[in-house]
Amino acid sequence: MHYPSKLVETAVEEISKLPGIGKKTALRLALHILKEDKTFAGDLATAITDLRLKTVYCESCHTISDDKTCNICNDKSRLNEVLCVVEDTRDILAIENTNQYRGRYHVLGGIISPMDGIGPEDLNMETLLNKITHGNIKEVILALSPTMEGDTTAYYLTKKIKPLNVKVSTIARGIPVGGELEYADEITLGRSILTRTEYNI
Amino acid sequence: MHYPSKLVETAVEEISKLPGIGKKTALRLALHILKEDKTFAGDLATAITDLRLKTVYCESCHTISDDKTCNICNDKSRLNEVLCVVEDTRDILAIENTNQYRGRYHVLGGIISPMDGIGPEDLNMETLLNKITHGNIKEVILALSPTMEGDTTAYYLTKKIKPLNVKVSTIARGIPVGGELEYADEITLGRSILTRTEYNI
Repeated sequence: MHYPSKLVETAVEEISKLPGIGKKTALRLALHILKEDKTFAGDLATAITDLRLKTVYCESCHTISDDKTCNICNDKSRLNEVLCVVEDTRDILAIENTNQYRGRYHVLGGIISPMDGIGPEDLNMETLLNKITHGNIKEVILALSPTMEGDTTAYYLTKKIKPLNVKVSTIARGIPVGGELEYADEITLGRSILTRTEYNI
Repeated sequence: MHYPSKLVETAVEEISKLPGIGKKTALRLALHILKEDKTFAGDLATAITDLRLKTVYCESCHTISDDKTCNICNDKSRLNEVLCVVEDTRDILAIENTNQYRGRYHVLGGIISPMDGIGPEDLNMETLLNKITHGNIKEVILALSPTMEGDTTAYYLTKKIKPLNVKVSTIARGIPVGGELEYADEITLGRSILTRTEYNI
């Protein structure tokens, strides 16, 4: 590309380093920033640096937080008996948006993936097992992705948690609400039959 | 959305103000920024503020520039006789990338659009007509979008430029290279017949 300005070129370079944003989109965003007020660029830049420099990981659940412990861990109205284990902060946001869960969370910070060289020792496993051993936890819900890595991690965790006399469950795998049976893959459909739920009407 | 951190929320708010970026994408970008090195966020933020605060509009052609006059206006090897009129800087980038044009440019900074309340007086028209009157320009190429607004602007400009004894042309409208005749709309196809080009083999 021939850029009329070195500053535009640098901005396009930096913006296009973000995932899913190519050079063309980056240029469109750069030209938008140029058209807007100076405060627009200022606020955006400040939000980006503050995000990276001022956030920390919650000491207790390892989610992204503004303070040493996060809002959810500080929330006294939440149940201490249930702990939901997720891969990263995004999963907490997704679950919180359902308004169906009132327990605590624990962020693993990744998933066991031998292909990427990620083993249990690279994840927040020790603090999880400590929490279960010393806390008042009755059930651990594994909310991991239904992939090979997710299932491996779930298997590993179950083996570790079960001996501590705590119930371990996983979120249901099945046909998405609104989904049509004929379009479901056979593994999902097979699982949904095996793990069928009884009607209590 | 329930955010675990106010800083994440602010970042998502600001990023999602960019065109074509919704809250979900903004969150994905924010989490990516969190995972990367601190310099990543720093470089991105600096590029954004520099882009907005340090760029200016070229005094001569009104494109985005690092200096008072842009690279293209400063380039002595380019033809002074041909002037290509475009809507904004993005169009210059597109034309430069074709490597088919060696003349000068003039950025209107928009297009006549009565619906949006944009008239000729809101665009860089006066400097354009001045340049044509006092310069050594032989041909003005109107490279505007083939929309109602683009055609209106082209008509207006032609009426103003023709009396100055300068040739006015427009980029060809027709079937895109690689495009199939049967999928072309009838207006494009009709125009492409009217403005057919003679084979010179």
